Amino acid sequence: MEWLSNRGKNMPASPIRRLIPFADEAEKRGIKVYHLNIGQPDIHTPDAIYNAMQEYKEKVLAYGPSQGLLRLRKTISEYLSHYGIKMTPDEIFITTGGSEAIIFSLMAIADPGDEIIIPEPFYTNYNGFAAMASVKIIPIPTKVEQGFHLPPEDEIVKRISPRTRGILICTPNNPTGTIYTREEMEMIGKITREHNLFVLSDEVYREFVFDGRKHTSIMDIEGLEKQSAIMDSISKRFSACGARVGYIASHNRNFYESILKFGQARLCPPTLEQIGAEAGFKHINEFMDNMIGEYKKRRDIVYEEIQHIEGAFTEKPEGAFYTVVKLPIDDAETFVKWMLTDFNLNNKTTMVAPADGFYATEGKGKDEVRIAYVLKEEALKDAMRILREGLSVYRSRAS
Amino acid sequence: MEWLSNRGKNMPASPIRRLIPFADEAEKRGIKVYHLNIGQPDIHTPDAIYNAMQEYKEKVLAYGPSQGLLRLRKTISEYLSHYGIKMTPDEIFITTGGSEAIIFSLMAIADPGDEIIIPEPFYTNYNGFAAMASVKIIPIPTKVEQGFHLPPEDEIVKRISPRTRGILICTPNNPTGTIYTREEMEMIGKITREHNLFVLSDEVYREFVFDGRKHTSIMDIEGLEKQSAIMDSISKRFSACGARVGYIASHNRNFYESILKFGQARLCPPTLEQIGAEAGFKHINEFMDNMIGEYKKRRDIVYEEIQHIEGAFTEKPEGAFYTVVKLPIDDAETFVKWMLTDFNLNNKTTMVAPADGFYATEGKGKDEVRIAYVLKEEALKDAMRILREGLSVYRSRAS
Repeated sequence: MEWLSNRGKNMPASPIRRLIPFADEAEKRGIKVYHLNIGQPDIHTPDAIYNAMQEYKEKVLAYGPSQGLLRLRKTISEYLSHYGIKMTPDEIFITTGGSEAIIFSLMAIADPGDEIIIPEPFYTNYNGFAAMASVKIIPIPTKVEQGFHLPPEDEIVKRISPRTRGILICTPNNPTGTIYTREEMEMIGKITREHNLFVLSDEVYREFVFDGRKHTSIMDIEGLEKQSAIMDSISKRFSACGARVGYIASHNRNFYESILKFGQARLCPPTLEQIGAEAGFKHINEFMDNMIGEYKKRRDIVYEEIQHIEGAFTEKPEGAFYTVVKLPIDDAETFVKWMLTDFNLNNKTTMVAPADGFYATEGKGKDEVRIAYVLKEEALKDAMRILREGLSVYRSRAS
Repeated sequence: MEWLSNRGKNMPASPIRRLIPFADEAEKRGIKVYHLNIGQPDIHTPDAIYNAMQEYKEKVLAYGPSQGLLRLRKTISEYLSHYGIKMTPDEIFITTGGSEAIIFSLMAIADPGDEIIIPEPFYTNYNGFAAMASVKIIPIPTKVEQGFHLPPEDEIVKRISPRTRGILICTPNNPTGTIYTREEMEMIGKITREHNLFVLSDEVYREFVFDGRKHTSIMDIEGLEKQSAIMDSISKRFSACGARVGYIASHNRNFYESILKFGQARLCPPTLEQIGAEAGFKHINEFMDNMIGEYKKRRDIVYEEIQHIEGAFTEKPEGAFYTVVKLPIDDAETFVKWMLTDFNLNNKTTMVAPADGFYATEGKGKDEVRIAYVLKEEALKDAMRILREGLSVYRSRAS
């Protein structure tokens, strides 16, 4: 490992992706693998997006502005206004996927060694982004038994140190499906103001809310204008994960200017996909309701199926398209791997993600998995049935 | 500036892009601005690339592999073999533009506070990437009078400290157009081996060599297999800057695995443009010679025009499509700005990049500008004539 930085050596491998070689092996042996491990939806990317990209006829596929194309920033400004969020195009910065939005935001508020507070379990790649930025994640524990809602204020406040620069939240939440209530968001706001922090709010799943719940944006909380930013992405909303278009929105001009300087260094986000993203936002009303209806149906299937797995537990997911499930096993990673290497039902098996990689606290989540319900009704039912059967065989073998 | 990190506050603004607002203002006043400030070629993006992207018919624009599509990595492996560079597809990692290739490579070999040696002037965004990675750049001075070739070995060796992790070179060079000779590359190799460093070799302009010169890749130097990596991009080669596709190639498996973990965190490079890039490499023989011929013609024009500017000096550029020119002025930034705010010739003006931003050493390059010869013959001649006239007026005003 000579020549490598500690950053490079210690960088965590993605728990969503690190077991993929075993899935590839299974597929080589002729096993069909249902992928519930990754948030890659099977919903068709809307035609409007493909059409816009295919109609792009500029002779040179040129650099765009570092902050993104104005036409896209205008469209996002209008889109946000439908949620009562007022952001001018100049307060919106287009990024290469939601990933870049989070990396740039972390770098803009935290120096190497600084701390960011994040409720855990959290989107696993936050670990990777923090490692890249040399920033330390301080986890706030949340529990499956409480539907992964936030703990009382003092549980959060006691984790603030002189090096704490901000709080990173994600609602609706990946991996838990939890939507923070207005009261929880107000509490985050109060802590942020009182301790002079900055909130980074990952709102990628803004539309993915079920059962009449309402998403509360960080921008709905008063008195945070200069101390907050939204991070977002078109990946899930438009089922266009491969497009790599996201954005940051903030009223804090200095924050924006820092992001712009990071953005200038990497020149610009991909041009063609920005054209596609613009079309997606313009046509969003034509497909969004159907998409959410489809995910709600899947949520119901997954939740129902979990009820039939002996010893499994989760609260009913409130939004997004994930749930973290407690299983009656010691080590989810061993089980997930075994499902790929040793188990199949009529030449089919199911892959989920071990949840320990979604925690910063060592040892937590070892008996939990994340399920992404990104397959159609029939496939999803089959995948869940296989998971249940597999678990049953696995437990009987172990005992 | 509350809530901002030092990293965010101290991040350098791009010297290529920071004066763009003045160019925008000039354009609003009806002035045509010739952009020789940015390496955005006017050459048409080959049809093969657009066609491949437009024929992409997958129903879901999905995440690809973090290391990039295998079909693209295979194509690049074949492309490199034509230069005698043997890289398997598994040694090639696709990045979101050459920018990400450099950021990831820096992060993989250097921790915050570590040092990287770079001959200056250098591609200005190295400053930005180093700031993001919290890595310190130690410049090796090179001089316009010596065509920006490398100084003797001891001038480099004496800058190595216990915190030095590697050397970053770019050949053919942006911003100078210099191509390092085989002997210079051997010297880099010797220093790297003797001091146990790692070489990052930016070879974006591999094909852009004039007058029968030969590009020497870092992979041509023996004994560096585990201590080197190539960084590359399709932006200039395929005139597709907006596509954001680049790659890293290295025989060092641990280095590759670190890069892979950074890559997993950001999920994947843009899918559609990888399809386009593959087509570009497959059809490269159909357009590359013409493109290089065109740039050589432009190089000749720019060099010839510079000879007619009183007090200007540069060596004849050997490759890439840039040159750094010494001008008879005290502060290039003031002059470049003045050209945009106060000067025009028949409602036209020329924008170049002040060269001080291409140096890490404070105060250097203040009387130099970088010219990117990215316009067609006639426009280029006009732009250079306007630059000459502007300089003449500027100097007579100042005196």
